Amino acid sequence: MATNEAVLADNLDAVRASFGPVAAFFNDSRWRNRLGQPGVCDFAFGNPQEMPLPGFVDALWSKVEPQNKEWYGYKGNETFAREIVASSLQTTTGVSFEPEDIALTNGGFGAIELMMKLLANPGEEIIYSVPSWFCYAPMAHLHGLQPVAVPMTRSFGLNVEALVGAITERTRILVVNSPHNPSGSIADAAELAELGARLDGINQHRRRPIWLLSDEAYREIVYSDGCFEPPVRHIRRSVICYSYGKRLLTPGQRVGYFAVSPSAPERFVVRDSLFFAQMGTGWNFPSALMQYALPDLEKLVIDLRGLERRRNRLCDGLEAAGYEVTRPKGAFYVLVRTPGPEDAFCDWLAARDVFVMAGSLCGIPDHVRLSLTASDQMVDWALPKFREALAAGAAKATRLSA
Amino acid sequence: MATNEAVLADNLDAVRASFGPVAAFFNDSRWRNRLGQPGVCDFAFGNPQEMPLPGFVDALWSKVEPQNKEWYGYKGNETFAREIVASSLQTTTGVSFEPEDIALTNGGFGAIELMMKLLANPGEEIIYSVPSWFCYAPMAHLHGLQPVAVPMTRSFGLNVEALVGAITERTRILVVNSPHNPSGSIADAAELAELGARLDGINQHRRRPIWLLSDEAYREIVYSDGCFEPPVRHIRRSVICYSYGKRLLTPGQRVGYFAVSPSAPERFVVRDSLFFAQMGTGWNFPSALMQYALPDLEKLVIDLRGLERRRNRLCDGLEAAGYEVTRPKGAFYVLVRTPGPEDAFCDWLAARDVFVMAGSLCGIPDHVRLSLTASDQMVDWALPKFREALAAGAAKATRLSA
Repeated sequence: MATNEAVLADNLDAVRASFGPVAAFFNDSRWRNRLGQPGVCDFAFGNPQEMPLPGFVDALWSKVEPQNKEWYGYKGNETFAREIVASSLQTTTGVSFEPEDIALTNGGFGAIELMMKLLANPGEEIIYSVPSWFCYAPMAHLHGLQPVAVPMTRSFGLNVEALVGAITERTRILVVNSPHNPSGSIADAAELAELGARLDGINQHRRRPIWLLSDEAYREIVYSDGCFEPPVRHIRRSVICYSYGKRLLTPGQRVGYFAVSPSAPERFVVRDSLFFAQMGTGWNFPSALMQYALPDLEKLVIDLRGLERRRNRLCDGLEAAGYEVTRPKGAFYVLVRTPGPEDAFCDWLAARDVFVMAGSLCGIPDHVRLSLTASDQMVDWALPKFREALAAGAAKATRLSA
Repeated sequence: MATNEAVLADNLDAVRASFGPVAAFFNDSRWRNRLGQPGVCDFAFGNPQEMPLPGFVDALWSKVEPQNKEWYGYKGNETFAREIVASSLQTTTGVSFEPEDIALTNGGFGAIELMMKLLANPGEEIIYSVPSWFCYAPMAHLHGLQPVAVPMTRSFGLNVEALVGAITERTRILVVNSPHNPSGSIADAAELAELGARLDGINQHRRRPIWLLSDEAYREIVYSDGCFEPPVRHIRRSVICYSYGKRLLTPGQRVGYFAVSPSAPERFVVRDSLFFAQMGTGWNFPSALMQYALPDLEKLVIDLRGLERRRNRLCDGLEAAGYEVTRPKGAFYVLVRTPGPEDAFCDWLAARDVFVMAGSLCGIPDHVRLSLTASDQMVDWALPKFREALAAGAAKATRLSA
């Protein structure tokens, strides 16, 4: 592989160090080579393993035919789409958002990048909990921010003391991702209220406030034993970063939003600069077609009952086989403790066309992450292989420790 | 309007100062209020004033129905789309691009942002010619780069001496936009060869090379008296930043690319880091649908003969009325010298539902920019008003100078 040698922006070194293993897995791996092939059991990413919702396809169908000459002209934060989002947020959170609080972005990634560029200076810090989504750190690095990782509690709760303890004069953004990737935990009202109170106290004495980045990509993916508690109800300076890619399971189609909390004292300053930062982050708006489709898409969520049945079948099967499993209350993922070394476990499964994500990519070594977006058939095919792997992996671990 | 007061990233102040007038025009103006209304003559932006190409709509239609379960899954630099672009570039430029030289981006803006983040450090400089597109400077500011504007020659040619003279130790990117927005000039082989030779000479003595950003958004929009000369044939370290939004006149649908020149000595270093910088710039890839449509879209260009007839009709009419007009050889725009103060001229026309862009937004005061994306009917309606404005504007200028 070619090296930087002063050719690239200096930040690329840290991006590469942080994101290299994920990029290699995504672009150049046995998983990539087998993607979409018959017989593959794909638990690797939160990617569709079944055909998209008919309602999703219908929503696009119904908006492809142009209804006027501006149909495919430049789109910004279109009023009709902002209104739908504000109304949806009011229903979900009970908080009165206005359309002007919403920036429509090129997916959830776009919302997070927008927040980093709008609110943080290079050299400032972004705090997040580990285990975590694998893109906070490399995105931060590209924009010159310093990512600061704080361990969650043993039960994957917010460690409020540790989060607050990690705050320095340079902290600008603190991430809460609930429901949580990869553990599926959901932050409760007590944790959020405590964090909100602590942040308010700290922000009173700061010239530049700390903002909550509430990554709510999985907000609608909640099982019957879980309940989503809106962080925006507890934390004054909140920004919701949202993606439709998870609720619709169509992550390739790029639509999301950034929403500033109406309770933030700086609400109007933020609103007034959204367009500027969206232009500068690459005309960071969804395509015309996705904006037109948004009112229909807001009515859709993937089949949660089916997903819950799959969660139960997979978790029950793995536990019955002897695995230690974290059964999620929300989001797509099941964390499983590996019987031996993580890499060997992943390789053993991959050689049998069962693809999982190594936990170390999410900051939790000696585990693997399984995405419930796999099909029921994949679960049925994979369970016997997990049972075999346990025996093989346990044997290997025994050898290694011998 | 709310002010920054240490709330926002420091760079936002410069972005706002640089982009404020364009943003106000785009979002909050008489033009915005009248957008799409009957009777409006809209020469303001390079935005469609006629229904999109039937072939464009057909290309989307034919790809909405998912053909497999991964159809709307995560998309990166998809091989089939990269191959189409590499083949198209080979035909256009005569240079042998490989698919891996191509990064598929969220429009031309996405390609430019990608280049800024991939190759330049905050504090480094980007040189561009004025008059110019109005987004280079504010995009640079958001990413902490220093924009350096260099005047073109009187005939809107590249001022190679001045461009080279503006280079400092901190220069990393030099922009050539050909065909040129807003003048319609096209850089010729002699200018490009001279610039290429000078840059090669300078780069020999530098640790960090200077790159050409070849903004080719208008590459296919060339009239019968013009001829596009590919900068990549003359300048070793070139990156092509491209948008399909102009050739198809569908700027709301967001698809473009970044292509590194095969002759760049650092080609492989750049290629190896594209994915990292695309992730960090907000999963900066086109939507699944636009990637699938790309092979069909590559066959389409708007009606250039019709556009040329319109150019001639508008320029002939304005000249006959007594205006000083720059007749473009490429791109969408006609520069017209104003008879009196620019703002008064724009306001006078706007009050009569004729919308043009103030030249000062493009770095050329005492001019207006007219987009040829207006319909033929708009040209017919507007010409008599331009004739009246000349009299009114001249009278006003006389009064002001009296």
